[in-house]
Amino acid sequence: MIKQKVCVLRLGHRVERDKRATMHIFLTARAFSASEVVYSGQRDPELEKRIEAVVDRWGGAFKVSFEKNWKRVIEDWRRKGLVCHLTMYGINIDDCLDMVPRDKEILVIVGSEKVPKEVFQLANYNIAIGDQPHSEIAALAIFLDRLFRGKELKGKFKGAKMRVVPQEKGKKVVQNVP
Amino acid sequence: MIKQKVCVLRLGHRVERDKRATMHIFLTARAFSASEVVYSGQRDPELEKRIEAVVDRWGGAFKVSFEKNWKRVIEDWRRKGLVCHLTMYGINIDDCLDMVPRDKEILVIVGSEKVPKEVFQLANYNIAIGDQPHSEIAALAIFLDRLFRGKELKGKFKGAKMRVVPQEKGKKVVQNVP
Repeated sequence: MIKQKVCVLRLGHRVERDKRATMHIFLTARAFSASEVVYSGQRDPELEKRIEAVVDRWGGAFKVSFEKNWKRVIEDWRRKGLVCHLTMYGINIDDCLDMVPRDKEILVIVGSEKVPKEVFQLANYNIAIGDQPHSEIAALAIFLDRLFRGKELKGKFKGAKMRVVPQEKGKKVVQNVP
Repeated sequence: MIKQKVCVLRLGHRVERDKRATMHIFLTARAFSASEVVYSGQRDPELEKRIEAVVDRWGGAFKVSFEKNWKRVIEDWRRKGLVCHLTMYGINIDDCLDMVPRDKEILVIVGSEKVPKEVFQLANYNIAIGDQPHSEIAALAIFLDRLFRGKELKGKFKGAKMRVVPQEKGKKVVQNVP
């Protein structure tokens, strides 16, 4: 059972340029048991509809919302929990994850092209999923997988209308009977 | 030290639609110690230049190449090593990673929108990084992280012109003196 609540803050979404990458962030956050994503930058109602359709079909209580003022999101969160910013310039996750308290709610920040300097200052932890240029989608997945110690990949999603039956070869999806 | 050689096969690249997602695949493969990526679909010289620029600056021997005939890539690989296809319809990684031999080279297949049925048949293992709709970028990262038991995040990249010095706050990058 996953108990630690995690919210993801996706910074600087640009409708044209980032529509696929941000959708990957939404899907990864949901699949790896984060509770919600807040995104800033440009509002993108199409993208919100797409993730809502996934939640409707595959279940769970995952939420996505837009907030122009990302700084307020971080400052509000600091009052009640922890802020972890994923960046290749930070401390290697191998050297700092053990220091992250397990009894507080976490805001995980992932940027897009350029992250404002203030984010590095406002975060409680700047965490590097390796120090090479990489993908914020990959970084988010690894952070959640390590934080939840791999237990998130067998999570159940309440109210799912469909469900995969694992196969060695091929695909099998069944409708859930309510 | 990472010894098991891994090559990634990215299927069905579309120049306009996938340019960012495929770049994330390239970066993730490199950052997580895969040796190379072969991609199929549409040839994309711009994208190849972008990843070559990253390798030039940040080091290592990572290679990217295009191959129209993805089926041949898989069939050739089957003769010398293992083929693992990452798909939400497969067997949960928790239930099958231990069965993947550690002494053979691995081809990891990641698809884009729709993966041909044959891929499921040709793969030795169809592996699910969870059974929820997710991101092939996230899936690749988790697969490599688990396969390499987390050791890949501190890899050294030979011939790097620049290097990050991990910081608690802010960014520090130094030029490597050759």
